[in-house]
Amino acid sequence: MSTQLRTRIFEALDALVLVDPHTHINALSPASTTLADILGYHYYTELAHSAGMPKARIEEPGLAPKEKVGRLIEYLGTTENTIQSSWLIEMAQVFFDFKDDAITTRNWESLYDKAAAAMAQPDWTERVLNRSKLEAVFLTNDFDDPLSGFDTNVYVPCLRTDDLVFHLAQSSVRERLQKATGTSVHDASSLAVAIGKLFEHFVNRGARACAISLPPDFTPTRVDAQRASAAVAEVWKNGPQAERAKQVDLGHFVFWTLAEYCAQWKLPFDLMIGVNRGVYAEGVFQGRDLYDSRVSLIQYRELFNAFPQVPFPISVLASVTNQELVSYSWIFPNVLCNGHWWYSNTPTYIEHDAAARLEAVPRTKQIGYYSDMYKLEFALPKFAMYKRILAKILAERFVVDRGWSEERAVDLGRQVLRGNVDTVFGDPRRR
Amino acid sequence: MSTQLRTRIFEALDALVLVDPHTHINALSPASTTLADILGYHYYTELAHSAGMPKARIEEPGLAPKEKVGRLIEYLGTTENTIQSSWLIEMAQVFFDFKDDAITTRNWESLYDKAAAAMAQPDWTERVLNRSKLEAVFLTNDFDDPLSGFDTNVYVPCLRTDDLVFHLAQSSVRERLQKATGTSVHDASSLAVAIGKLFEHFVNRGARACAISLPPDFTPTRVDAQRASAAVAEVWKNGPQAERAKQVDLGHFVFWTLAEYCAQWKLPFDLMIGVNRGVYAEGVFQGRDLYDSRVSLIQYRELFNAFPQVPFPISVLASVTNQELVSYSWIFPNVLCNGHWWYSNTPTYIEHDAAARLEAVPRTKQIGYYSDMYKLEFALPKFAMYKRILAKILAERFVVDRGWSEERAVDLGRQVLRGNVDTVFGDPRRR
Amino acid sequence: MSTQLRTRIFEALDALVLVDPHTHINALSPASTTLADILGYHYYTELAHSAGMPKARIEEPGLAPKEKVGRLIEYLGTTENTIQSSWLIEMAQVFFDFKDDAITTRNWESLYDKAAAAMAQPDWTERVLNRSKLEAVFLTNDFDDPLSGFDTNVYVPCLRTDDLVFHLAQSSVRERLQKATGTSVHDASSLAVAIGKLFEHFVNRGARACAISLPPDFTPTRVDAQRASAAVAEVWKNGPQAERAKQVDLGHFVFWTLAEYCAQWKLPFDLMIGVNRGVYAEGVFQGRDLYDSRVSLIQYRELFNAFPQVPFPISVLASVTNQELVSYSWIFPNVLCNGHWWYSNTPTYIEHDAAARLEAVPRTKQIGYYSDMYKLEFALPKFAMYKRILAKILAERFVVDRGWSEERAVDLGRQVLRGNVDTVFGDPRRR
Repeated sequence: MSTQLRTRIFEALDALVLVDPHTHINALSPASTTLADILGYHYYTELAHSAGMPKARIEEPGLAPKEKVGRLIEYLGTTENTIQSSWLIEMAQVFFDFKDDAITTRNWESLYDKAAAAMAQPDWTERVLNRSKLEAVFLTNDFDDPLSGFDTNVYVPCLRTDDLVFHLAQSSVRERLQKATGTSVHDASSLAVAIGKLFEHFVNRGARACAISLPPDFTPTRVDAQRASAAVAEVWKNGPQAERAKQVDLGHFVFWTLAEYCAQWKLPFDLMIGVNRGVYAEGVFQGRDLYDSRVSLIQYRELFNAFPQVPFPISVLASVTNQELVSYSWIFPNVLCNGHWWYSNTPTYIEHDAAARLEAVPRTKQIGYYSDMYKLEFALPKFAMYKRILAKILAERFVVDRGWSEERAVDLGRQVLRGNVDTVFGDPRRR
Repeated sequence: MSTQLRTRIFEALDALVLVDPHTHINALSPASTTLADILGYHYYTELAHSAGMPKARIEEPGLAPKEKVGRLIEYLGTTENTIQSSWLIEMAQVFFDFKDDAITTRNWESLYDKAAAAMAQPDWTERVLNRSKLEAVFLTNDFDDPLSGFDTNVYVPCLRTDDLVFHLAQSSVRERLQKATGTSVHDASSLAVAIGKLFEHFVNRGARACAISLPPDFTPTRVDAQRASAAVAEVWKNGPQAERAKQVDLGHFVFWTLAEYCAQWKLPFDLMIGVNRGVYAEGVFQGRDLYDSRVSLIQYRELFNAFPQVPFPISVLASVTNQELVSYSWIFPNVLCNGHWWYSNTPTYIEHDAAARLEAVPRTKQIGYYSDMYKLEFALPKFAMYKRILAKILAERFVVDRGWSEERAVDLGRQVLRGNVDTVFGDPRRR
Repeated sequence: MSTQLRTRIFEALDALVLVDPHTHINALSPASTTLADILGYHYYTELAHSAGMPKARIEEPGLAPKEKVGRLIEYLGTTENTIQSSWLIEMAQVFFDFKDDAITTRNWESLYDKAAAAMAQPDWTERVLNRSKLEAVFLTNDFDDPLSGFDTNVYVPCLRTDDLVFHLAQSSVRERLQKATGTSVHDASSLAVAIGKLFEHFVNRGARACAISLPPDFTPTRVDAQRASAAVAEVWKNGPQAERAKQVDLGHFVFWTLAEYCAQWKLPFDLMIGVNRGVYAEGVFQGRDLYDSRVSLIQYRELFNAFPQVPFPISVLASVTNQELVSYSWIFPNVLCNGHWWYSNTPTYIEHDAAARLEAVPRTKQIGYYSDMYKLEFALPKFAMYKRILAKILAERFVVDRGWSEERAVDLGRQVLRGNVDTVFGDPRRR
């Protein structure tokens, strides 16, 4: 009974047209051109590397796409148990009519060729969007992205701000800021002006969120203008050699300024909390980051109290932080649960975390899922994984345990999958 | 099979007459008088506020009960997914013959009126107790509560000590202590005498526990008399402006003194570990507290070793601390698991936490559940939630996974639901 | 369906012949001689003590085995809910033809006598190994163990190094080191030489791992020779009274040196992370240790980066650390998941933790289980518990949720149960 119930609920959810509220899609090249774009996703390269593949095998300069795929395939068998592998198989089956249940050294070439042919079709991007029932995807744009050359209704700009908060000590970042804003920064006030211009540009181009990823020890606090100006002076003068405390002050000032502009421009501020960058120095590209799960949302207490008008959709990197996210979302009107991020984006953790959210956070305050993808083909299997888990939770915990009707359970699922994306991330210009 | 098995075990457990070992019931006004008493419970007001209801809508001075309910109902739809909402529906169905599965702006008024009529019956309190199969409920009494005017066999006094440990810097608390004990405190020794009088009064009036809630950074330690006297002098002189270190010393001294009296008077000392008060300054009444889940029972190491004769029934605020509670209860004879507290009182966390306890802690050392309620009507749906989860665990993990007979599983359930309450919280005067 | 599926998968897994990659077996006396060896296991004595049994009842000098068992049996009823109790019953049923489902004051004597008779058989050890389908068990050997008098193909030596890293301040440990290595230690270099001799001895005698248990605050780091020599001088001179910082330096130096020899000798370095020793001073023998779950693998960052050639099979004491273990194993090629240790070796935590590993860590990098046993009879029920949980996960999460064939799921189970033990812990002399 329960399996059939799950299937029926899944099918109802699977009929929805989606908006993906967080991706790393390049709007000028959203879909893949060969299977190397797919298998080059850090989930596969880092798992293959973890299973024994030398990094040089795939990071060799000038390596041809097909050769790269062939080398990665050798290690696929060792990771076929992973959910990431199941995304790959489902994608191959749906998009490229793949019939086997594993990609091996014997069958990969025909898949590669079939995929290349499919991807070469001029309307491939539209086919993927249609087949995936994707109406729009949110981007992750550098602060100096011109945001031109694409339809911002389909590829929705989001202002990513890690560089501003954490990397202004690099001269290249400061130069990009000056170039993007035409503003010469010399103190707190001119820095705030420059940041303000970024918001103006982004909102005018249809941006719907400001976003940032944060290390576990980050504890935002207000820094006054005088202290901030001293930090600007020090960092602009000494760059990476600037006094550490001043660099921290600068980061805090920029972060607080971002929150102020989010308030002014009515943008949600996505916080992705808990990542340590570069933990594994010799890791593959994008496969070096890990975390310290000893983090608490209490670190954000001052921020949440200071900006009641700014919605903070929050992602936590570790499942052990999810209960805090549930509780803070239940108490703070401006705190929302947002998706299942990275190392928590696997079924066991999604199930535990999503169930806890669904039973204790207002239904209007939960963004169920985002794909975090770099290429469009990933939305389908990733969302499918989430929808299956969501269907399981709704079937077991709402229909069976709490006596809800199927229809009512499906409605709840629809809201967290799609409805809340529209209400939370609506166009700020229309608010 | 498993669903029917769960139902049979639930029904067996549901036949039990209960004692609720922790509530906030006012013994002089235990049941509700209107639905405003129900919907005014912080679980509903804070969820409604979180979902967008301005605080002023319900904290307006002089607001009539029915109007208050009407305003809260507007937001119920946004929180109907929560387990707290399901308590409300079940309560309305059982006590007020409510037939729908949601309380809406269209059907609430008749429910309100029906409830008001039912609650107006002179024997409403007894009806609720009977219908809920409740024999007695434990109270949470201020240290200066006269404990008179009610039957202490039904409304069992418990000495709540947060004010003594954390708020003696407030002159009003010191005055209450002086008035309640007729003792003028001027040093460690007279403070201990005063606290001793509270224990004498409480135990003579039938108290069965001493209780306190504690912040995540609290680490009890013994403070000697000289240092404690210095702390008393400083705090009695300077109140909230007293040196911080002296206030901490004073709190530690009082806490340790409480444990000493628990030993002397044979009272269990309920520790509710992990809450940060006032995190969300603009929250609704009782809806401002949150937590930092980075807490460890290792902080209580000195205490547990120093008082082997005192039972410490422990509640932890965050599910991530539950495994430590399991392990410490498995090793320390004086550490017991106590209920599922507040932010961990939702099905996903209860299920994970209770299952871990049932399979690794002696069956005699687990208090399954307490309601934490402010009004009697809440015991029924809250205990029903717990009993359903307990039945699920017993069915799946004991009968199916471990081959236990149903009867044996039910016996285990009875013991954690009721038997252990009697043995752990028996009358200290009869020990 | 799912229950039958689980049973079929369990039976397939249960047919495997096993190698147990971590135990505390004494190779010269591997099996039990009376039930007192079984019930004297700290899991039973500490649970009985926790449930109220005075320590003196079982730690009385000269207590006869049968009397000791009789006294422990009195408390078995209070812990029969625990999974540890179920190991006992299953063991009694399988090895001693016990027919009841509980060991009580009424039936224990005949069980005791039957067990004693069985254990008195000259081939009892072989019978247990055969019945348990155990081909070999890994030992936990003191660094000065002569490793003689037993078949190292069945009883595989492992170099346990807690004493070297944490207890060199004790003169007895320093003397044992001198005696075992014939080396007089006076600086960093001679200490390294001495440690090197231990590795040579162990590897020549067939050792397949170096192992250590570590407290939550341990953060390994490289200490240079000069600083290490200063630490040696201080500790060799002042023993336990040596400066604390110097003792820490010494521990760090020894630990790093162990890792260097693991690299040189191609030995995996088992890290068992998170235990605080002696937390409950009055606990029974081996029942005094607990933990602080606030630990992170980020503490091992420098180590993991410095020794890419050393496999680190890692056990974590608390389930809340398991997600970090999953993520670090997914990223670092040299980090592996190893079993379910001690306080996490109960079904609820095993299920959550193993499921997360199986879906995100390469299948080649997971050691499913080890028994940690002191007597051979425990392998059977402990592995049976794990195999049942593994079968449940494979049935529900792979066959049902992901559409895997049963055969494919069983293959995955076989690999984590046995295959990876062979590949990860192969004989270093043959690499």
